[in-house]
Order: sequence, then structure tokens, then C-alpha cells
Amino acid sequence: MTDAAQANPPASPGSRSSRTSVLSGTRTLGWTARDVAAPGPLEVRVRVRRVGVCGSDVHYYTHGRIGKFVVEGPLVLGHEVSGVVEAVGEGVTRVRPGDRVALEPGVPCRRCAYCKTGAYNLCPDMTFMATPPVDGALSEYVVWPEDFVFPVPDSVSDDAAALLEPLAVGVWAARKGGVVPGQSVAVFGAGPIGCTTIQAAKAAGATTIVAVDLEDFRLDLARRVGATHTFNARSGDPLDFIRELTAAQTGLPLSHAGVDVSFETAGSLPTTRLSLAAPRPGGVTVLVGLPPDPEVSLDIVSAASREVSIRGVFRYANCYPAAVALVASGAVDLDALVTHRYDFAQTPEAFEFAEREKRASMKVMIDVG
Amino acid sequence: MTDAAQANPPASPGSRSSRTSVLSGTRTLGWTARDVAAPGPLEVRVRVRRVGVCGSDVHYYTHGRIGKFVVEGPLVLGHEVSGVVEAVGEGVTRVRPGDRVALEPGVPCRRCAYCKTGAYNLCPDMTFMATPPVDGALSEYVVWPEDFVFPVPDSVSDDAAALLEPLAVGVWAARKGGVVPGQSVAVFGAGPIGCTTIQAAKAAGATTIVAVDLEDFRLDLARRVGATHTFNARSGDPLDFIRELTAAQTGLPLSHAGVDVSFETAGSLPTTRLSLAAPRPGGVTVLVGLPPDPEVSLDIVSAASREVSIRGVFRYANCYPAAVALVASGAVDLDALVTHRYDFAQTPEAFEFAEREKRASMKVMIDVG
Amino acid sequence: MTDAAQANPPASPGSRSSRTSVLSGTRTLGWTARDVAAPGPLEVRVRVRRVGVCGSDVHYYTHGRIGKFVVEGPLVLGHEVSGVVEAVGEGVTRVRPGDRVALEPGVPCRRCAYCKTGAYNLCPDMTFMATPPVDGALSEYVVWPEDFVFPVPDSVSDDAAALLEPLAVGVWAARKGGVVPGQSVAVFGAGPIGCTTIQAAKAAGATTIVAVDLEDFRLDLARRVGATHTFNARSGDPLDFIRELTAAQTGLPLSHAGVDVSFETAGSLPTTRLSLAAPRPGGVTVLVGLPPDPEVSLDIVSAASREVSIRGVFRYANCYPAAVALVASGAVDLDALVTHRYDFAQTPEAFEFAEREKRASMKVMIDVG
Amino acid sequence: MTDAAQANPPASPGSRSSRTSVLSGTRTLGWTARDVAAPGPLEVRVRVRRVGVCGSDVHYYTHGRIGKFVVEGPLVLGHEVSGVVEAVGEGVTRVRPGDRVALEPGVPCRRCAYCKTGAYNLCPDMTFMATPPVDGALSEYVVWPEDFVFPVPDSVSDDAAALLEPLAVGVWAARKGGVVPGQSVAVFGAGPIGCTTIQAAKAAGATTIVAVDLEDFRLDLARRVGATHTFNARSGDPLDFIRELTAAQTGLPLSHAGVDVSFETAGSLPTTRLSLAAPRPGGVTVLVGLPPDPEVSLDIVSAASREVSIRGVFRYANCYPAAVALVASGAVDLDALVTHRYDFAQTPEAFEFAEREKRASMKVMIDVG
Repeated sequence: MTDAAQANPPASPGSRSSRTSVLSGTRTLGWTARDVAAPGPLEVRVRVRRVGVCGSDVHYYTHGRIGKFVVEGPLVLGHEVSGVVEAVGEGVTRVRPGDRVALEPGVPCRRCAYCKTGAYNLCPDMTFMATPPVDGALSEYVVWPEDFVFPVPDSVSDDAAALLEPLAVGVWAARKGGVVPGQSVAVFGAGPIGCTTIQAAKAAGATTIVAVDLEDFRLDLARRVGATHTFNARSGDPLDFIRELTAAQTGLPLSHAGVDVSFETAGSLPTTRLSLAAPRPGGVTVLVGLPPDPEVSLDIVSAASREVSIRGVFRYANCYPAAVALVASGAVDLDALVTHRYDFAQTPEAFEFAEREKRASMKVMIDVG
Repeated sequence: MTDAAQANPPASPGSRSSRTSVLSGTRTLGWTARDVAAPGPLEVRVRVRRVGVCGSDVHYYTHGRIGKFVVEGPLVLGHEVSGVVEAVGEGVTRVRPGDRVALEPGVPCRRCAYCKTGAYNLCPDMTFMATPPVDGALSEYVVWPEDFVFPVPDSVSDDAAALLEPLAVGVWAARKGGVVPGQSVAVFGAGPIGCTTIQAAKAAGATTIVAVDLEDFRLDLARRVGATHTFNARSGDPLDFIRELTAAQTGLPLSHAGVDVSFETAGSLPTTRLSLAAPRPGGVTVLVGLPPDPEVSLDIVSAASREVSIRGVFRYANCYPAAVALVASGAVDLDALVTHRYDFAQTPEAFEFAEREKRASMKVMIDVG
Repeated sequence: MTDAAQANPPASPGSRSSRTSVLSGTRTLGWTARDVAAPGPLEVRVRVRRVGVCGSDVHYYTHGRIGKFVVEGPLVLGHEVSGVVEAVGEGVTRVRPGDRVALEPGVPCRRCAYCKTGAYNLCPDMTFMATPPVDGALSEYVVWPEDFVFPVPDSVSDDAAALLEPLAVGVWAARKGGVVPGQSVAVFGAGPIGCTTIQAAKAAGATTIVAVDLEDFRLDLARRVGATHTFNARSGDPLDFIRELTAAQTGLPLSHAGVDVSFETAGSLPTTRLSLAAPRPGGVTVLVGLPPDPEVSLDIVSAASREVSIRGVFRYANCYPAAVALVASGAVDLDALVTHRYDFAQTPEAFEFAEREKRASMKVMIDVG
Repeated sequence: MTDAAQANPPASPGSRSSRTSVLSGTRTLGWTARDVAAPGPLEVRVRVRRVGVCGSDVHYYTHGRIGKFVVEGPLVLGHEVSGVVEAVGEGVTRVRPGDRVALEPGVPCRRCAYCKTGAYNLCPDMTFMATPPVDGALSEYVVWPEDFVFPVPDSVSDDAAALLEPLAVGVWAARKGGVVPGQSVAVFGAGPIGCTTIQAAKAAGATTIVAVDLEDFRLDLARRVGATHTFNARSGDPLDFIRELTAAQTGLPLSHAGVDVSFETAGSLPTTRLSLAAPRPGGVTVLVGLPPDPEVSLDIVSAASREVSIRGVFRYANCYPAAVALVASGAVDLDALVTHRYDFAQTPEAFEFAEREKRASMKVMIDVG
């Protein structure tokens, strides 16, 4: 440990001026320099390296709100973040300057009934990056609590470290689905979250993974990261495909065909309907995306009378350690998801592109430094 | 065992003529005499004592169908059944003539993946009493497989033994909800299934049990069997009541108020909506009843984004032993649910009454013999 | 809230001198006055009312150590604590001066993997009252973090509020055992922890509860608080009793007889052996107590080949809210466990008595103020 | 189905003379011809292709007993079986003549509480191949119930189909351990069951898999099938290795280091002790093997006070479908385990070799036809 410590002499913990991308209005990204304080006790200051552009970032950029969260002042976007530890505050023991790290972007209160029972994603007092009014990470420096900073080994690239965030969503979705070895799953929507859900389901042992989307570009990538079957919903009814496939595999009648677990990741009404209909009796539907309208017309009667469990997903809890391990071991390849990259200075162009070419891109990555 | 065997000499296992109530058309209940065979290997012949009238029996009586199940020939109704063992077939060891018993009305195939994993309620080849074309138990004698015949001790009355069937539904609902000691639940609908759900939730340790209905008659009975709070939905918004109550109990903000588990037992759209909205974030909704229309408009987005799990119930599996134990121990009082009774000969009047006075009665019991 | 706030004007948050009972050597309890600071942010100062004497307190008193925990300086005993809030620090919202409260005696780090996943009882940096070198609560005043201070309603007495601590152990044991309605359990040892385990198992729906002990005094109390059967192990082999009882209940052969869950609460080798042998195949053994020697000779082969799960218990996590609800609702009666009481000034006599009359007493309570 | 049925004309269902290897005394394997009846309703007659030699077969061969199971008459060994369907009885729908299949060797009663709840491996009336007095499969033909006959696709070799049996043990062990993605496991013993446990743990997402054995030959194979780390226990203390490795991975102190799940598969006292000590607090030990003496001296106190759960394994239930899927998908490679093979006529030599070269062989396969 001594050598490494010498190689990375304790950086000055004084404050830093941090060049920062700021959303000041709809489709208006500008620049500012913000002071970043020295890390306090149990805090870490990180020099940001990569920030992935997420659909929610783009949504704030174009609409200025997501549901009840409204951008009312200048907001820093970005919550898929990797970097290098630059300075540590008092009492920090898990990381030290020079460590390459990923940041889990949500920090809960640690004191409520949700936090104490391990369900901290539901904490009423959550601080989550790039969710108004909390700033995100499109900045040179970020200060963050040590226990939400995860060191990564050399086998995890800077890009991959940033993309541990969407992988955490996939890991949480697979956990909620209770995926175990030998099961069949269907994933509706093959965007970044669909793909990390596929990767997490595969890591959990799913042996039949059907990806459904409208774009062959996405389905090709889905197959590359683990889908065993792909189905373009423009070509027919995905339910027929799923039922025939699973009936043949299980020997059960068509009335009892269906996947063990279905995942909705596209956030549309048609895929929500499909995801409720896809499981076998006794199976599970995990709603990772959500339809845009709060009130939707669904055949919940059929799902309930088949004892299909419907489970929602809100972010994730305790998934970063598993996500790091999966990527470090080679079980999951996150680099495959990065299709486009921009320099920090091109951040506005990155957002324009991400909005315009949503269907022709998977993950847009910003190289902050 | 010898003395008892002498006290109950082996009854003749020959066939029996069994006076039987038959539904031959909508609202048309007649009588016939059916031959009941000698019990085969591992089978038991039971002299029926009590049959409870269930809402599904009344629905077949008045509508001739429930969903895809259509009454096409004469059908014997009744699936809440108690009686006395009269003769046993070869290899039967668990019961003997003279034993007072309850009959679990559904017998699965025992061979499919559902049966082998313990989820026999979802078996594609289920034989379930009084579900067309399978006959029910409104008859003097029934032959049934030994392993779906459960002996009851003297502390369980004949009425209560018949009502183990709706209690099994309540036990299954509480298991699906994962109710554990100290939790709060809300039960929407305080009919027979609502009341057995209340009883099962109480037996599982729920300490706050809110019953919601439109009829004070039912709410009074609900309180008698375990509800700690009752709310007549004609008097205001049950959600306001539930949220204020649970916020005060937990100290959480109103955004995170709600019961741990909600149960929908009324089978209406308004109660389905309420049941989805009633749980706290991370809570559970169990759909025991189902709205009449397959396609319903629901705020599933809100439920999913709060990570409320929605679980359906289709009958039950492996609940009779627990139901027997709960009633035998005094933890659950099923006799309290019987509000009206008829002799076997009055079966048509019993059905007329059950249909007409649905709101002023709880359980109508037929005394078969 | 205004009226109540007026009735309980904010007490001065300045420091307090707190008369304190101190263990300064084996069997040597003296007195001192300690300064108790004003409550800091998110902290509460409590005027202590009751402290229950636990077996571990007595063990430190008589032996000066428990395993690796050694009393090296003066130590304040007592971790079963109730009181009244006297002052609150900045940011406290859940309680206010005048509230009657129970104190959960262990406060974890809130930051490690155990804390974040809800298993805070296993936190490596736990601060637990009356475990060297952390002081306990045999003092007039205690300052404690708000989120480990639980208000209790009027239906919970001061004694009962203190005894929520051993009840929390019982609730945790029943959770570990996975007790559900209709199950059978055996509890080996009917001391205070045995009795709260019985109460928690009953609250979770166990319908057969066999208590086993060597003292009729304890067995009588066990029956009063929920045991359905008691067995004095001086009178025969408890396993024979348990197997015959459960075989008769389940109809299974003696090879498959046994309780669903057994609990060891006596901390002796014979009861540990019994607890491993008592469950049916597929059942569970929960080790609440532990034999005094680390290395014990056990028939683990038989337990494992019957797929009996053996689960240890170390304190508890997230059990206080359930424990409060169970006592407040009347489902559990903790007052029944208090057999002897002493004034604060008699603390040395209370410990002498608790050691000497272990077999003739259940819970000794100290009335601090 | 018609074409295929023509391609495989219904084989004559009449009886068959079946050349059979019979154990008639210790180390005495002879030959006989047995009549094999036509398959009855819901039964299938299989022409056996491969039978794997299991340690229990060798134990009956050398000792004439395993625990309470004693060879008292001639016994046919072999319960790892693949073959081809030759004829089917009335009502069979899941397989047809010509299908390549694996046989699950244990058939339960289907009627007891264990069978009905999905825990059929604990059925008191289990019929299990090659467990006295039930004959095994070292014979040309076997008749077996359809629902314990599993068709395999072309991607599963005959050898692999036979080895689905030990893989089922591994799958069951991993399920009992609750292995989920990103976890660390240790497997003590790297024989056939150790290796299938490694494969099942890897399929379930374990990213750190430490194999411990005394033979480098086995450890090399363990690494080939999924172990990420191997440790020869002749070279030092495996616990030191495991604790340092996992402390580095998790950042937790050594007191809280350890794997998430440990598996004992060697059936020795030293490995049983190691397996209890290897998990982190809150972890799990799965006892797949069992020490030879029923009464063993163990530090159960330490395991219990760290809340390590100890779970036994007795055969498996509902694991064949998952095992088939894992091999068919390529996630598990069973062919890698076959190190030696013999013709059916050489069955006595196969057993001699398997006993003599236990340490230099992994799986010995007999090519029956």
C-alpha cells in the first residue's frame, strides 16, 4: 500500500473551481464555473471522467420536467458518472486519491424506516443527482459521500464505470423479477435500460431471453449483449412468438405458455400491455419504464387471475457492488453499449444528437476529462 | 384405534343413491337421484352435512356462466362442504368412517410443473367442484380423493368446516400479501371473502386492519371478526382516512403514508382503484376479487413508481391445513359469519334469498344432512 | 399540535447531572453523577423511567465479561429502557418533550453494506448499550439518536415499553423462523426470551406452541403468555412428546413428525441438541441462545439430511415498530413478565436477587424515576 | 406431429428382456436378464444409453450400505441415466418414441404434504433408483413415469443428459444458498458434486468462486468449469485465503470478511468445519455432503452468533427443467466432467476403477447402449 500512496500523494483538499455545464432553460445548455468545496468528513472529491447521457437528462433538456419534478432554476444534468478520487475528507477509509471510481448518484437520509430496512431507494428525503433541484455531475469536480463512491478495478473502463448506473437499474429489475437459472424472460424495449436488463437477466441465469423492439439496430445490439431471441414488433404479434416458443420449451398447453418474467423498459402503453400478457400463470411482470399517462387502460383482470405479480421499479438499492462485480468479472460488457461519444466542450451537441437520433443510437457518452 | 373402529364399523362401500340438487337452467334448481359409486383406491365417500352458498354459486344460478366457464348441461352447485366419512377405499389411511371432515373442492393433476412445484391452484387440468362441467356437492354423498379430505376436531363445527373453503381464500390472500406481525392492512369489501381475509390477516399478526364497505351491516361484522377500524365509503374518501391513520402511526410524511398491504375483495372497479392507491411505497396490493370488465383504466403508473407490488389470487394451494388449525385453535371464528340457514329441501329458496338479500346477509348455509 | 406543545413547554436543553449506577468491579455496583450533554442535532434527551434487568447484565455483573466483550473500566449496565422525552435537539421531528418512549439500545454506523441492506444488527461499528465499552441506561438521563427512540401510546405501560427490547428479540427470532399462521413451534427454555419468543410466534399465527423447561414456575408463565402445551423436561423426553403430538396433527409418519420451527432460548448444550432434533424434515431451528462452549458436539448430519435449516440470531433489526404495535394492540402482554421490581436506589439488591433467584423469577424491573 | 410419428412408428409396447447388471454382494457385480413390462398408463419405456457412476453407487458396491439404507437382496445400481424413448403408455403426451431423454431418478407419492407443497424430495414414500430396495438403471431398459422423463435437445449429449442428475444436485445447492449475481462463494471439495455446484453457482451469477480441494487434478478441472480461484488445502489455511480475498473485494474489516455462500461437498469433518467458518456474517452455509459420523464437534456458536444460516441438502426437487435449460443453452458444460468411460460389459471394471482411482478421476461413464 505504501508504494501506491507515494505514487498518489495526498492532493490538496482545498476548494476547486469546476467548469460546469448548466441547463438554464429548455434546450439551453450553457457553461459556468462553480466552486467545489474541500471534502468534508466522510466525503470524497472526484475529478469527473465520463458522464453518460440518460433519457431522463434528455427529457429535462427538451421538456424542463419529468412528472412532478420541474426544472425551476439552473440545473446541472448527468447522473451516470465515473472519475478519479482527487481528495478525501476526514475519516474516509474505503478510497484514496488516485482510485478510479463510479458514483452512485442517489444519497438517502439513512434514518427513516425505508433506509433502515434496506429500501433506501424509497427514502422520502433522497438526494438524487440531476433531479431538480439537485445538481448532477456534468462538471469537472464532484464531492460525494464515501459510501456512495465505488472503486473499480482496471478491468472496468471509465465508460463502463459510468454505465454502472443503468446496469444498477437492470440488476434491480432482475432482482425484482426474481430471475433464477434456467428461466425464460422477455424484455420489451431494447434501449439502454432494456439492454442492461438483458445483461442482468443473463447474469442471473436466464437461458431464454426474448428482446422485443421496433428497431433492428437495437435488437442487433440486444442480441450481442445476451438476448437469445429477438422480435421486431413490426413483423407480427410478439405474444404469439413468446407463447409458441415457451410452450415448446415447457411442454405446457398454450393456456399456460409464457415467460417466467417479463420486463417493460420502453415506457409506452403498448409495451405495458404486452408485458402484462407475456408471463405464464404464476409469472412476474416488472415495470421498469412507465407509460406517459398516469391512467391507463389495462387487462389487469387476466393478469391477476393468472396470479401474475406486477412489480414496479423505482431506481435501485444496493446494486452497485453487484454491478461492479459483474463488469469486473467479464459477465457483463457495458462498453458494447457506447455508440457515440463527445468531448465535454461538445455537451450541447451531445444532447442535440441524443434527442434527434434516439432510434439510431444506444448510449451517448461525454468525455469530461 | 380398535375401539374407535368398533364404534364405527366399516360402512358398506357399495354404491349409494344420492339425492341431489341440480341447476338445469337459469334460476332453475331441481332435484334428482344420482348413483354414487363405492370409493375407489385412495378415495373416500362422504355423507355431506353442510354446504355454504358462495357468490360464484349464485352467479351460475342467475347468469349461467362466469367468464369462460359456461353452464351447458345440468350442474350440481356447492363447493363449501363438510360432512362425515362413510366409507373408505383401498389404501386410505388418513381418515376412517365416522370422521368429521372438510373437503377441499379442487383436485389437480399432480403431474404438471405447477403441481410439482406446489402451485397446484394453477394446474391446467384442475377438477374444481361446481365449475362447469364438474359437479359440486349439493348432494347427500360425495366421493373424493383422500388427500383433499381433511379431518376436523370437535372444536370445529360442521358450519365452520364448510367455511374452511372461504377461509382458505383469506389465508392464501394473506400469504400472497406477506402479512407479518405489526403490519397495517386495508380490506376493501367486507363480504364473506373480505371477512375471512380480515381473519387471516389478523391471524398473521396485522395490528391495524381497516375494513371499507358501503354497508354498515357488513362493517359491524367485520369489526366483530377482527377489523380494528371500519370506514363506510359513503361517508368520505377511504384514502384520506387510511393515509392520516398510517402517517400518525409511522411518523412518515403523507407522501409515504399508506398500509403495508391492501386487499381488494369486492370485485368492483372503484375498489380496485382504491386498493392500488392504499399501500405505502414498497407495499403490496392483493387482488382477491376482480372487476367485472377485463379491460380497466387504472393508475398503474403511480403504483409502479412507488414500487407497490400487485399480486393476483386464483383460489389457493396448501391452505386447508392452516385453516383447520386456525379454527381449531380458536384464532378464527367462522361460525360468526353464518347469518342465515336453510334445510336441504329449501335449497331453491336459499339461492333466491342469497341473491335478493346479498347486502343484508353474510353467509347462507344449507343443512344437507 | 399547538395545545400539546403548550402543555409540554420546551424543556431547557442545557446539560444535566445524571445519577448513575456504575459497575466498577465484579459484583460491585456503585453510584456516580455524570454530566449528560444537551441533545445534539437529531438527538433526544430522555428522562429514564424503567430499566429491565437482562441476563447479560447479570453476567457482566457476576463474570465481568461475555465472550470477547470484557469490562475493563467502569460500566453502566441496562439496555431495556423506557422513559420520557425531556429535550430534543435540532431537526428532531418525530418526538417532542413529554412523549413517553422506548429506546432501541443499539445504534449502527448507517454507512456500511450491512446498514445499507437493512441488516444493521451485523454492523461492524455498532454502538450497543451496556456492551463494553459502551455505557447502558441505569442513569437518570440518556441522550440518544431520534431514530432509535420510539414513542409509545398510553396503552403501553412504562414497564412494557422497557420490555420491548426482549420482545424485539422474540420478534426477530420468529421472523428468522419464518413462522406463519397454522404452524407448530417448540420453544426450548421458558425464561424472558423464551416467553417473548412464544409471544412473537403466537402473534405470527402459530397454533401449536410447545414450551419446554425444567421449572414449572416458568412453564406456567409460558402458558399464560401463549404456549398451548408445556413440557417439563424432568418428566420425560420432549422429543417423544413433540413427535407424537405433531404426527397426530399432520397425519404424517413419525419419521416426518416434528414442529415446523424450533427455538433454542436457554443457551445450554442439551437444549441445543433438542432444538436441532425437534423440527420436521424441511423445518427450521432458530438458535436464540447459544451454548457456553464454542465447540459443541451435535448431530448436524441428521438435521442437514432432513433439510432442517439452522439460523442464528444476533440481537435484531427493524423490530421495534412491530413490537410497539403488538403491545399497543393488546396482541402481546409484556406486563405479565414482570415478577419483581426494585427502586433505582436498590439497584445493587436487584442484581443480587436476579442472580440468586434466577429460577424463581422472570423479569426484574428497576424503577429509575 | 404426424410426420414425426411416422418417422418413429410406435414401437411394440410388449415386454422386453433387459440385460441387467446386479450387485449380489459386496464387490460382486453379476449379470441377469430381467423382464421389463410394457409401459402402463402415463409411463414410458426407455432404452438406456448412458449411466454415470456416482459415489453412492461405489459406496453400495464396497460397503453394502449407506447409513440406514442396507443392500439386503440383489440390487441394480445406477441413477444417472439417459436414453431413448422406445414405447409410451396410454395418456403419455410429453414424449414419444425416438425422443432422447434424461430420467429423474426419484418418484414421490404425489399426495403427501411434502409433494403438495413442492418439497417432494422430502416425501416419506419416495421411490429412488439404486437406493435399496429400489433398483437402478444399469439395465438395457427402464420403465418410468412420463413426468420424470425429460426430453433433451441435440445440443445435449447422451453423457451430459445422464449427468443432469449431479447437476440437479448443484442447482438445488445453489438455490438453497440463494446465490445471486455478484456474490462470492466457496466450494469445499471439487469432485463431481463440487464441480456441478460450481457450475450452478456460476450460472446463478456468482462472480467469485473459490474451489478448495486436496488434489490439483480436481482443482484444475474446477477452474475449467467456472472456479475463479482455486486453493489446495495442503498449501495453507483456506480461511485465510478466503478472508483476505473477500475483505479486499468488499472493503469490510476482516471480522466481517468471508464469502456470501459456502458449500460443503466433500463429506468430511474438516471441510464441514471450514464451510461453517467461511461465510461473512449474515452469509449461508450449504451442507451438500455430510460427515461420516452422525455426531460431530463443530463451532456452531460462532456461526450462529454471526447469523450464518446452515442449510442441508437432500437430493433436489424441480431442478431437472433448469438443468436441461442450462446445458442446452451452453451455460454449463457437463461433458467436461467425464474423464473415463467403459462399455456396459465392463461394468465391474468400471466400479473397480472408480473405487481405486477416486482421486485421479472425475466422472466414470458407462455406455449401456
